[in-house]
Amino acid sequence: MKPLIDPAFVVIEGLEGAGKSTAVARVRAFLEQRGATVVQTREPGGTPLAEKMRELVKTVHQEPLTPQAELLLMYAARVQLVENVIKPALAQGHWVVGDRHDLSSRAYQGGGRQLDSALIDSIRQAVLGDFKPALTLYLDIDPKLGLERAKARGELDRIELEQLAFFERTRARYQALAQGDDSIVTIDAGQPLEQVHQAIDAALGRLERR
Amino acid sequence: MKPLIDPAFVVIEGLEGAGKSTAVARVRAFLEQRGATVVQTREPGGTPLAEKMRELVKTVHQEPLTPQAELLLMYAARVQLVENVIKPALAQGHWVVGDRHDLSSRAYQGGGRQLDSALIDSIRQAVLGDFKPALTLYLDIDPKLGLERAKARGELDRIELEQLAFFERTRARYQALAQGDDSIVTIDAGQPLEQVHQAIDAALGRLERR
Repeated sequence: MKPLIDPAFVVIEGLEGAGKSTAVARVRAFLEQRGATVVQTREPGGTPLAEKMRELVKTVHQEPLTPQAELLLMYAARVQLVENVIKPALAQGHWVVGDRHDLSSRAYQGGGRQLDSALIDSIRQAVLGDFKPALTLYLDIDPKLGLERAKARGELDRIELEQLAFFERTRARYQALAQGDDSIVTIDAGQPLEQVHQAIDAALGRLERR
Repeated sequence: MKPLIDPAFVVIEGLEGAGKSTAVARVRAFLEQRGATVVQTREPGGTPLAEKMRELVKTVHQEPLTPQAELLLMYAARVQLVENVIKPALAQGHWVVGDRHDLSSRAYQGGGRQLDSALIDSIRQAVLGDFKPALTLYLDIDPKLGLERAKARGELDRIELEQLAFFERTRARYQALAQGDDSIVTIDAGQPLEQVHQAIDAALGRLERR
């Protein structure tokens, strides 16, 4: 096994039912086999305050949550996680593996909810600056298939209750953003699991020293 | 008594201990004496979800709340209040009297916390658009005096625990913003109460038909 590059932030992205949890576990295992200490995060959430914001976003409330408030809560939770967990972990020489990060907001709020991309970019720039993952694995899946899998897992949350068109728009935005960014590797999550794993492993080769 | 103009949103602003609650009551009375139905709001808060965000902002947590997350939570709470309470109330022909609104974020987060004004403006534009109060009464007070009054009232919240310099910066920003906006009337809240009341009443003349 080749040694790893310096500790970095690796993110798994994709629609509900794309297989993110399995992929997170595989990335963890890859890093841990090579001697890394891994801090695992999930978004929105991952700190006591960010988890409270997650609850506001995920729960079905009697009062409708406006798309703008949803976006602002996502970034409020994100900046808490980045400043209080991710950056300190990296500074201590740990790896960080994230179940979702910024790309989710750009795809769901920008694509799904059709909020202005320029607004999202300016909030993102203001709260995150140049901070970004070294590698993002985007698990691309047909929303029909993904939602079937998510439904089979149990109750759906507020966002998962959206219409199919919402997820189609989210997927299209994910695909477009992935295409324009070298740090994002798209993985066909509709393939048999063995092939998905092979594709993940191939992408993780980037985390080994040349 | 002259009849009122069409129902509008009136806001009371100022530092802790400036006398906002008394001023809110006086504005309410002025409007109600003239036959208006008044919906009273407070920020951050004023809806079930916004009150949950208020709690995140106001409470002292073990985990530090970053200035950026604080700003985003303030605007998330605000858009909930504007969309779910203030706009519907105005549409029903009610008056709305607010204990704080957008000017607070611009003064506290922009002045006190020294966050980038351009960022605040872009979030504000994105979530509020052209919506703004018809009249804002800014109660201007020396922070030393205001904080003494606030302390006399009881326990201080997370924001009220800031250093004096924070409130000096906040006041300076309030003053600068008030000077550049015709819809904001500055009232010297360090005067004897009777004179403060007279100044409020004079400003409320703007809400009567010419």
